[in-house]
Amino acid sequence: MSAAPAAPAAPAAPAYEALAARWRRVAALGDAMAMLSWDRQTTMPPGGAAARADTLAELAVLRHEAVTAPEIADLASRAGEEPLDPRPAANLREIRRLRLHAAAVPPGLVAARSRAASACEAAWREARPADDFAAVAEPFARLLALVRETAAAKADALGKAPYDALLDAYEPGGASARIDAVFARLEPALAALLPEILERQARRPADPPPPPVPVERQRALGRRVAAALGFDFAHGRLDESAHPFTGGVPDDVRLTTRYDEADWTSALMGTVHETGHALYERGLPADWRGQPAGDARGMTIHESQSLLVEMQVGRSRPFLEFLAPAVREAFGVSGPEWEPEALRRRATRVARGLVRVDADEATYPFHVTMRYRLERALLSGGLAPADLPGAWDEAMAAALGVRPPGDRLGCLQDIHWYDGAFGYFPTYTLGALAAAQLFAAARRAVADMDSRIAAGDFAPLLGWLRENVHAWGSFLDTDALLARATGAPLSEADFLAHIRRRYIEEEEA
Amino acid sequence: MSAAPAAPAAPAAPAYEALAARWRRVAALGDAMAMLSWDRQTTMPPGGAAARADTLAELAVLRHEAVTAPEIADLASRAGEEPLDPRPAANLREIRRLRLHAAAVPPGLVAARSRAASACEAAWREARPADDFAAVAEPFARLLALVRETAAAKADALGKAPYDALLDAYEPGGASARIDAVFARLEPALAALLPEILERQARRPADPPPPPVPVERQRALGRRVAAALGFDFAHGRLDESAHPFTGGVPDDVRLTTRYDEADWTSALMGTVHETGHALYERGLPADWRGQPAGDARGMTIHESQSLLVEMQVGRSRPFLEFLAPAVREAFGVSGPEWEPEALRRRATRVARGLVRVDADEATYPFHVTMRYRLERALLSGGLAPADLPGAWDEAMAAALGVRPPGDRLGCLQDIHWYDGAFGYFPTYTLGALAAAQLFAAARRAVADMDSRIAAGDFAPLLGWLRENVHAWGSFLDTDALLARATGAPLSEADFLAHIRRRYIEEEEA
Repeated sequence: MSAAPAAPAAPAAPAYEALAARWRRVAALGDAMAMLSWDRQTTMPPGGAAARADTLAELAVLRHEAVTAPEIADLASRAGEEPLDPRPAANLREIRRLRLHAAAVPPGLVAARSRAASACEAAWREARPADDFAAVAEPFARLLALVRETAAAKADALGKAPYDALLDAYEPGGASARIDAVFARLEPALAALLPEILERQARRPADPPPPPVPVERQRALGRRVAAALGFDFAHGRLDESAHPFTGGVPDDVRLTTRYDEADWTSALMGTVHETGHALYERGLPADWRGQPAGDARGMTIHESQSLLVEMQVGRSRPFLEFLAPAVREAFGVSGPEWEPEALRRRATRVARGLVRVDADEATYPFHVTMRYRLERALLSGGLAPADLPGAWDEAMAAALGVRPPGDRLGCLQDIHWYDGAFGYFPTYTLGALAAAQLFAAARRAVADMDSRIAAGDFAPLLGWLRENVHAWGSFLDTDALLARATGAPLSEADFLAHIRRRYIEEEEA
Repeated sequence: MSAAPAAPAAPAAPAYEALAARWRRVAALGDAMAMLSWDRQTTMPPGGAAARADTLAELAVLRHEAVTAPEIADLASRAGEEPLDPRPAANLREIRRLRLHAAAVPPGLVAARSRAASACEAAWREARPADDFAAVAEPFARLLALVRETAAAKADALGKAPYDALLDAYEPGGASARIDAVFARLEPALAALLPEILERQARRPADPPPPPVPVERQRALGRRVAAALGFDFAHGRLDESAHPFTGGVPDDVRLTTRYDEADWTSALMGTVHETGHALYERGLPADWRGQPAGDARGMTIHESQSLLVEMQVGRSRPFLEFLAPAVREAFGVSGPEWEPEALRRRATRVARGLVRVDADEATYPFHVTMRYRLERALLSGGLAPADLPGAWDEAMAAALGVRPPGDRLGCLQDIHWYDGAFGYFPTYTLGALAAAQLFAAARRAVADMDSRIAAGDFAPLLGWLRENVHAWGSFLDTDALLARATGAPLSEADFLAHIRRRYIEEEEA
């Protein structure tokens, strides 16, 4: 039961040491909120919702006060004068960044935005099934106005453009100029590949739909696969929730999935995806618990870890060779539809669709790039919120040649904007690019990676990720972390090569 | 998701209103700690223990700071000058009491005592199975010294004797003089009844041990019985833990039990007992959530609610008439050993035993009174900690005529003292007396109580408890609450009458 060590520094850094010790209360509040949020989504009876919302709101206020306390500003300022090793210096940089974000927004605006987000999200929950954007238009316009106000306040404090100031909360150091450049290369290259991919998909044999599988058997398979991938059940749990997510804290990672008897691959791929997130959290540097330098680097790297495990590994031939016998044993089934090749066809289906969360890895980036452009237009004022449905439908038609039959499958499909989250969407695709780049590097480093994975031995992969990604916490920025691990900053090259290989070159095999 | 209303007051009480609003953060921290403690005991994987301990310790520090914040003292002082209705006035009184308790003890002593309690509890966990008090003697002596220091500090601040100052944390307003007087009447009266009770027990037919029952069936029965008693699963859960307890918050009550296939009555009676606690929490005044006047009155009334449901109701003939068919159906069994009379004999067995938690209601008070005397002697210095084992064995022999074969079944059996809890034990028996007193009053108020209970209709009982106990929160002190509900302050009379009736008069029936 020993307390976490204060983040180590050079000996003569008393202000830094005091700052790190003082930050523990911020971490404790964050950890408590993480666990209470997990409980809310997995365990809490419905009648507890209002009380839980009050508790979480109060803890958020306390956390905000703790981050913006004068002691933090004072200690951070004095620590800046002290001689610090690179890791404490990185920790100080992260503390300053978090303090700037918190202090930038006046408390009244924080509260107003929080209330507007609650109101808008509640309206969205009604508007989506009703297929009716008009029902959420007013609360959305009010929320957007407050988001723009927040972005302006953060832009001033951080010295960034408003969109970049919001992005920085999810992807520290992220910049739209950098994203623009990546997307400008990615989109045309991917668009050029798509017709050939779809043509090859059309030549595939027709597979029957999967047979129903009882939840208990799916659960056993999910636990077995998560454990094989390296998830340690002494330091975490696998539970159920309406939307799969990874929560908890690094020493007690709580991942969830959802079960559908009619489609066992959905729960399993959810588990595999979240296991990637969970392994990252669990592998963060143990000596830096409770310090921001010990936290995950940002959403790009976080998503890279889930997508590396789900997409790069989990839909690959070697993985499916490992998976097929495990599935047959867990479900008590046999036959050609349970062989690796049949599982591979199911895991690598590509189609132009309307819904992001159902999208395959080849079309997913288009869902993201159109949202990225739309949210920037909404934030800049170039797109009025009332005009969103039309702009959305045009963007979908341009990106993937499909047109939503209504707002439910159009601009109402995602919760993000209606909850006030702007600047989040690009990290999905940046994460997919980083996943391809990291896995390519890992395969270069581990010569027999494919055969080890086919044998169900994920230790070499996990070892490489631990050493090159997880253990680095937030010591480096995203590009520096990737450059150190792969030899180059973030790029679309490995992702495009991966798509070409899996969906064109290997499709004929 | 609306925030809880600030505790209502007279309109012209701005300081009081600000105080009540400010107190919400104390409540939020307490609620968060309650949920995280529940999770720790029911859900958390073992590897999460150290991180959870750190989080809870940090939240405890934050809560202590929030209670002792200068704003609280200042607002409480100004609120004392304002015209307040009785309920806000009660709330102000409780806030002041909690602030006094927190502010009385210097932070250094709080931390030292917390560390000493952790060390002593860890030593106790080794010493108990080893049957060896000597192994815990030193850490226990160190902890006791800090408890005595704490008691002295609280005695100064609260203007009470040291023991009473500790007692006040569990039983607000409790006084050892009052307890002495009650126990001085209770003990000889009960001692006089015991020989006749045991003689009648000896005449009972020998019942076979209960057959093993699968946990799944026990769980179904427990849920059914808890629901019948009035537990609302939309506002709570029933889970498992090593030691049954009730946690959570009033709108989301988390009760637990433990299952033993070899003794189904143990899990069921645990559930019934905890349901009594849970119904109390759930019935606390909803308008006063997050304010101390809306909290449970203290451990005497809390224990009265669990014992009323478990002992007064749960082991009564009418209840067992309701229970027997439910058990037969849930377990798929039949035969004379599943008839109400056989269940009643099992539920009302009396024996002189060594272990408090296994004791029946007729001998339980002796376990408490001897601990009460010993803990006062330890606190006053009249009993040296090293002399505890001998004093314990003498006290057991004098109270119940039994002598422990070693410390495991003697002075090491309970965690309380080794965790630093002094002043808690008497509330078990004060709660048993209050339970008898309240149930007697409820039966006077509800003429057909027995037949309603036998029919599985607990609504009249729950309605009476809601109106006369639960809804009163901490508006009144314990004696005033009992006097309002039953016509008299706390007394042993109804308890003695109950014991006489159940174990002597009705035993022949």
